[in-house]
Amino acid sequence: MTHKIAILGASGYTGAELVRLIAGHPNMDIVALSGERKAGMKMAEVFPHLRHMTLPTLCKIDEIDFSGVDLCFCALPHKTSQEVIRDLPGGLKIVDLSADFRLRDPADYQKWYGNPHAALAQQDEAVYGLSEFYRDEIRAARLVAGTGCNAATGQFALRPLISAGVIDLDDIILDLKCAVSGAGRSLKENLLHAELSEGYNAYAVGGTHRHLGEFDQEFSALAGRPVRVQFTPHLIPANRGILATVYVKGDAQVINETLAEAYGGEPFVEVLPFGQAPSTHDVRGSNFVHIGVSADRIEGRAIVIAALDNLTKGSSGQALQNANLMLGEEETLGLMMAPLFP
Amino acid sequence: MTHKIAILGASGYTGAELVRLIAGHPNMDIVALSGERKAGMKMAEVFPHLRHMTLPTLCKIDEIDFSGVDLCFCALPHKTSQEVIRDLPGGLKIVDLSADFRLRDPADYQKWYGNPHAALAQQDEAVYGLSEFYRDEIRAARLVAGTGCNAATGQFALRPLISAGVIDLDDIILDLKCAVSGAGRSLKENLLHAELSEGYNAYAVGGTHRHLGEFDQEFSALAGRPVRVQFTPHLIPANRGILATVYVKGDAQVINETLAEAYGGEPFVEVLPFGQAPSTHDVRGSNFVHIGVSADRIEGRAIVIAALDNLTKGSSGQALQNANLMLGEEETLGLMMAPLFP
Amino acid sequence: MTHKIAILGASGYTGAELVRLIAGHPNMDIVALSGERKAGMKMAEVFPHLRHMTLPTLCKIDEIDFSGVDLCFCALPHKTSQEVIRDLPGGLKIVDLSADFRLRDPADYQKWYGNPHAALAQQDEAVYGLSEFYRDEIRAARLVAGTGCNAATGQFALRPLISAGVIDLDDIILDLKCAVSGAGRSLKENLLHAELSEGYNAYAVGGTHRHLGEFDQEFSALAGRPVRVQFTPHLIPANRGILATVYVKGDAQVINETLAEAYGGEPFVEVLPFGQAPSTHDVRGSNFVHIGVSADRIEGRAIVIAALDNLTKGSSGQALQNANLMLGEEETLGLMMAPLFP
Amino acid sequence: MTHKIAILGASGYTGAELVRLIAGHPNMDIVALSGERKAGMKMAEVFPHLRHMTLPTLCKIDEIDFSGVDLCFCALPHKTSQEVIRDLPGGLKIVDLSADFRLRDPADYQKWYGNPHAALAQQDEAVYGLSEFYRDEIRAARLVAGTGCNAATGQFALRPLISAGVIDLDDIILDLKCAVSGAGRSLKENLLHAELSEGYNAYAVGGTHRHLGEFDQEFSALAGRPVRVQFTPHLIPANRGILATVYVKGDAQVINETLAEAYGGEPFVEVLPFGQAPSTHDVRGSNFVHIGVSADRIEGRAIVIAALDNLTKGSSGQALQNANLMLGEEETLGLMMAPLFP
Repeated sequence: MTHKIAILGASGYTGAELVRLIAGHPNMDIVALSGERKAGMKMAEVFPHLRHMTLPTLCKIDEIDFSGVDLCFCALPHKTSQEVIRDLPGGLKIVDLSADFRLRDPADYQKWYGNPHAALAQQDEAVYGLSEFYRDEIRAARLVAGTGCNAATGQFALRPLISAGVIDLDDIILDLKCAVSGAGRSLKENLLHAELSEGYNAYAVGGTHRHLGEFDQEFSALAGRPVRVQFTPHLIPANRGILATVYVKGDAQVINETLAEAYGGEPFVEVLPFGQAPSTHDVRGSNFVHIGVSADRIEGRAIVIAALDNLTKGSSGQALQNANLMLGEEETLGLMMAPLFP
Repeated sequence: MTHKIAILGASGYTGAELVRLIAGHPNMDIVALSGERKAGMKMAEVFPHLRHMTLPTLCKIDEIDFSGVDLCFCALPHKTSQEVIRDLPGGLKIVDLSADFRLRDPADYQKWYGNPHAALAQQDEAVYGLSEFYRDEIRAARLVAGTGCNAATGQFALRPLISAGVIDLDDIILDLKCAVSGAGRSLKENLLHAELSEGYNAYAVGGTHRHLGEFDQEFSALAGRPVRVQFTPHLIPANRGILATVYVKGDAQVINETLAEAYGGEPFVEVLPFGQAPSTHDVRGSNFVHIGVSADRIEGRAIVIAALDNLTKGSSGQALQNANLMLGEEETLGLMMAPLFP
Repeated sequence: MTHKIAILGASGYTGAELVRLIAGHPNMDIVALSGERKAGMKMAEVFPHLRHMTLPTLCKIDEIDFSGVDLCFCALPHKTSQEVIRDLPGGLKIVDLSADFRLRDPADYQKWYGNPHAALAQQDEAVYGLSEFYRDEIRAARLVAGTGCNAATGQFALRPLISAGVIDLDDIILDLKCAVSGAGRSLKENLLHAELSEGYNAYAVGGTHRHLGEFDQEFSALAGRPVRVQFTPHLIPANRGILATVYVKGDAQVINETLAEAYGGEPFVEVLPFGQAPSTHDVRGSNFVHIGVSADRIEGRAIVIAALDNLTKGSSGQALQNANLMLGEEETLGLMMAPLFP
Repeated sequence: MTHKIAILGASGYTGAELVRLIAGHPNMDIVALSGERKAGMKMAEVFPHLRHMTLPTLCKIDEIDFSGVDLCFCALPHKTSQEVIRDLPGGLKIVDLSADFRLRDPADYQKWYGNPHAALAQQDEAVYGLSEFYRDEIRAARLVAGTGCNAATGQFALRPLISAGVIDLDDIILDLKCAVSGAGRSLKENLLHAELSEGYNAYAVGGTHRHLGEFDQEFSALAGRPVRVQFTPHLIPANRGILATVYVKGDAQVINETLAEAYGGEPFVEVLPFGQAPSTHDVRGSNFVHIGVSADRIEGRAIVIAALDNLTKGSSGQALQNANLMLGEEETLGLMMAPLFP
C-alpha cells in the first residue's frame, strides 16, 4: 500500500533531504510540497539535484487538500510550526522536524525559545521522536516531535549509561563538532564559504544552546532526578555530520558493554570495538550512528564518541524512521542506503 | 533471481563505491571481495562506512571459486587488470573498470599506456562500456570495458553533436574540472589535503592525458574520419565530480535541440533548459548526467557543459548499469538514488 | 615620510585585505576607515583577525576630514563609488577598487553596468590600474581605477601576445576558475558553505560577465582593431585564487618567449619553465602572478595559464602597488610577502 | 647586522614556513637549506610558492659549512634531530622544531617516544621554547627546543591559571581540534583530501598523544606537584589552526582576569572580552594567539578556548621568535604580519 505524503517547508535542507530519502522508499508517494516564499516554483528550480524526479510544484500550505494525505512531514521553522500544526486536521498523522513539540513542559519551551507556546493541546499529545527509545509511543502517536540533531547525538552516547547508572551524573561534558548544514539555509555572514571554510570555532559557549532543554528533560527523566550537563558546540568546515565527544566518569569497559548491549539489536546503531573512535566520514548521507568508547589514562574516566549525519539520522532520516513506525511499515524501509565515502 | 557477484580490487574507491551501490540493488549478492595487500581484513576495517553490512572478508584473487560467481567486477589497476582477466574462466561475465580494454587497437593501447597488451583475445571481444551508446552490444557482451571518467563526461557532451554533424570537428576544446577521487587512493603529495584543498591547477596540459585515446577512437569512429580534440583537465578541491566545459563552433540552438532529442528517453541524462549551466553539486553520489548548452556572444559559437559524479556515473555506477544490461535486469535497478545535496 | 591613508568601504573583503597589507607597509598610516552600515563599530568587531592592530573606528564617509589624508582607497560597490568619488576633494589622490572608472567610454560603462555614469569628469581623468602596463600614467595620475580581478588575470596571459602579434586574434578562449571571495561578502544562497563547497559550476556563460568590457577595451586598443574573446568563469570551492586557462592559436615556443621577455624585469610576474602549469596554491595571499605555457598536441595551438590571488594581485595588492607609484614610493613596498602554503 | 641562517629539513611544511617568515625579516639571510632526499633540487621545484625568492639549492647536511652560520633551525623528524644536533659544532646556536629536546627527563623521553635519547648532553642544556614563559632562559640559550603545537595551545590557555592557583588541578579536560598540516607532509591514506575533507574524528583518544609528556612536565613544574590532564585531539578538515577547548573548574571571571593580566604586555597574545570565543579563522598565517573565557551555566565551571596557527605560532613562528631572542633582535621582528582572512 502506498502512503500519500505531504512535506511542509520543502525548500529547506531538511525538506530536500526528506525528498531524497522518500525517493528510495517503495511505499511512499509525495503528493504535496509547500514553500511559502517559493510557491509556484518547481523543485528542480529550487533544488536542481532533484530534477530527475516527478514532483508536485511548490505551493502554499493553504492550497493543500489534506484529506488526501496520509502523513505530513513539517519542516518549518520553530514557532511557525506550532501555529501551522495547530490548524491542521485533527486526525492527520504528523512528523514535525522543528523544536516546537520537543519539550513537554510549556515553561521549558518558553525558557529556551522565548515565546509562549501557541499549541498547548498538540504539545500535550506529542511524542518525543528518538526512535530507538520511544518506539512504542511513536507507533501509537499522531504527532511526533523530531529531536534536535545535537540532542540526538548526545543522547545516543549517554542514555543507556544514565539508565544503567554507570556514570557520574554530575560531571558530564559534551564537546560537539557540528557541520554547517545544521544551521539551515540561513543567509548569515559566518555561514558563507569564504568565512566558514578553513577554520572553526565554538559557539553558544557556556550552556546557552537550546538543545540543552532536551538534554535536561530527557536525562533528568531517565535518572529520576535533575541532571545538568555541560555542552559546547563547535562549527566545523564540513557540510554534514555531528561528532559528540563525551567526557564521563565511570569504568570504560562497563560503559562499553552497557552501550554494546543496549544497541545490540538496533539496525542503525553500531558500537565499535573498544578503543576505536568513530568518524563523521563514515556515516555521511546515511541513517547510521557510530559509537566508540575509550578509557582515559586517568583511572575512572572514559571518552564516549558518537557520530551521525545531522540531516539524515539527526533529522530527516529519523523523521522517516518515525513515519515508518507510525504507518505500520518496516522501520528500516528506505533507510538502509550505505554512507557516501569518499 | 539473485545474481552472485565478485568484486576484484575492493579496497580502492571504485570498489567501495560498487559495494555501496550493490547494497541498494535488490537482485545482487556479493559473494567475494578481493584485495591483494589487504587480504584477510574485513571491509569494515578498510572502509568503516560499510561496517553495517554483512560482507565477505577480503581475500586474494586465487582464493575465489569463480564457479559460484555470475558476474565479476574488476576494479584493479590497468596492466594488472588484463593479466588477471586473461586468466579468469572463459565464460565468466566481467565488467572491467580499468583502462585495459577500452582501446580497440592494440597499438593505441601501447601508445597511451606504454606497455604491449597482454590479453589480446579478451581485448578483441571487449565492448566499450558507455551504456547509453553501446546498449545492445553490452547486453550481448561477456566482457565490458568501463570508460574513463573524463572520457565519459566529454562523450556525453559531444557524441550526439558529432553524429549529427552540427559542429566543426576541427575546433573542439574540452576544459575539464575533475575532483580528486578520480586519482584513486594513491599516496602522492599533491593529493594530500594540505596541498590540494584551497587551490587548483591544470595537469597533463597539451594533450598528454590518456583518456584522449578514448576520445580519438570514439569521435573518429562516429565522424568516419580522424577527429582530434584539445583536452585539458584541472584538479579541483572537491572529492567527487567532473565538469566538462566544451567549446564548439556551431549553432547553439541546434546543438541544444540535438542533445535534447538524443537524450529524450534516457533515464540518467538530463538536458537542462537552454542557457542553464549544470553543477557537479547536483549529481553528487548519483548516476545522473546534467548537460547544459549556452550560446556565446560571438555568433556561431556555443558552450556545452556536462556534469557527472566520476565515481558513480563515471565509473562504478556505469559499471552497475552495464551489469544490469548483461544480466537481463532492468537497466536502472539500484541506480535511481537521488544525489546528495548539500 | 609617512603617508596618511583613508579606506572607504573597509568592512568588505578588499577593505580588510588593504588593512592587512598596509599593516606591513613601513610608510603608510591608516587615519580613517569608513563603513556606512557598520559605522561606530571597531574593526576588531567586524574583522576579529585584525584585533591586534590599533585602527580608527569605522565611521561614515562624511565624518572624514580629507584635508589630513594623502591618499584614499575606495573599496565601495560600483555606482556608489562614482557618486562618492565625484564629491571628494578635487586634489585628493584616489585608488578606486570598483568597476566605475575602468571603462573609458561612458557608453561602454552603461552597456555593461546598466546605469548612466554619474561622474564623467572623473571618469575622463581616470587611469586604468594594471600597474605593469600603465606604470607611467599611474605615477602621474590623481585617480586610478583598479581592474577587475578576472580582467587582470586574463590580461597578464594575453597582453604581450596581442602586442607582439603572435596569436590569432579571432580565436581566443578564456576559461577561468575563480574562488569565492571574488563575489565579496554578499549574502546569497549559492555562496553559503553548504551549497558551494564540494562542487563547482560555470556562471555568466556565453559572454555576459561584466569584465568582458575590460577585455574588449584593452585588447582592442592593443591590437588597433576590435578584438572579442570568449570568456567563461567558473565558481570553485576555494576562498582565494583565479586560474585562467587560455586557449590560443600560435606557436607555443614563441608565445613562451614573448611572455618571458615581456615580464623579465617584473618583480611580481613569474613565467614558469616551458611546459609547466601554475597553481593558485602557489600565489595565495601574495601579490605574485604565475604564468605557464604549454604546446598542445595539435600543431599551432598553445595553452597559456595564469594564476593569481584575486584579493591581492587581483584587487587590494594591485591597489597598494598603484598607491606606491602615485606616492613616489618603491613599487614593491609592503608587497613582497611570500604566499601562504599550505 | 644580518644573521646568517641555515634551515635543516627545509622540504617539509615547517621548513617552508620558516622560509616564508624569514623572507619578511630584515636582518636574516638564508645561507643553507638541507633536504636529504631532495638534495640538489631547487626550492622552487619543491615549493613553487617560493619561486620568486633567491634561495640556496637544497643540499645534504654534511655539505653545509657551519662556520658561516649564525643560527641553525632544525626542522627534522624526531630521533633524526637528536643525532644530527649532537654532531653539529658545539658553539652553534640552534632552534630545534622537533620533539627531541622538549622533555627534560630522559626517562620521559623514552616513555613517550620509545627510544633511548642519543644526545643527553644537548638535552641537558636545551631550554623549552615557549617564548612567553621562558624568555630569559631563551635569550641565554644555545639550544632551544620548540614546543609541540598542541602543547603550546594548551599551555597558553592553562599556564597562568595553574600558576595563580585559580582552577582545580585534578579536573582539567583539553578537547583539541587540529588542522591537518600538523601531521606534516606524510603520505598516509587518512591525510588524503578524499578521505580527510568533509568529515572529522578524534584520534589518540584516552591519553596516548605524545604532547601529553609536555603537559605533564610543564604543568607539574608550575604546580609543584604532579598534574595530569585529559587531552583528546581531533583531526579537522582545514589546513592550519588549532583550537583548544579547555574545561576547568574555577570562577570564570577570576580566570578571565588572571589571563588578561598575565598576557597584558604580550605582543602576540590577545585575551578577548569575557564571553567571546576565538576562531582559528582569525589567526591563520600569523603569530597571534587568541584566548576567550566563558562561564558555564553550571556554577564554578568555565570554558577557556585558545586558537593559534599550528605552523606559525605553534611551530615556525615560535621558532623565529626564539631566534630573535637568541640573536639579540627585537622579539617581534618579522612576525607582525596580520592573519590571512578570508
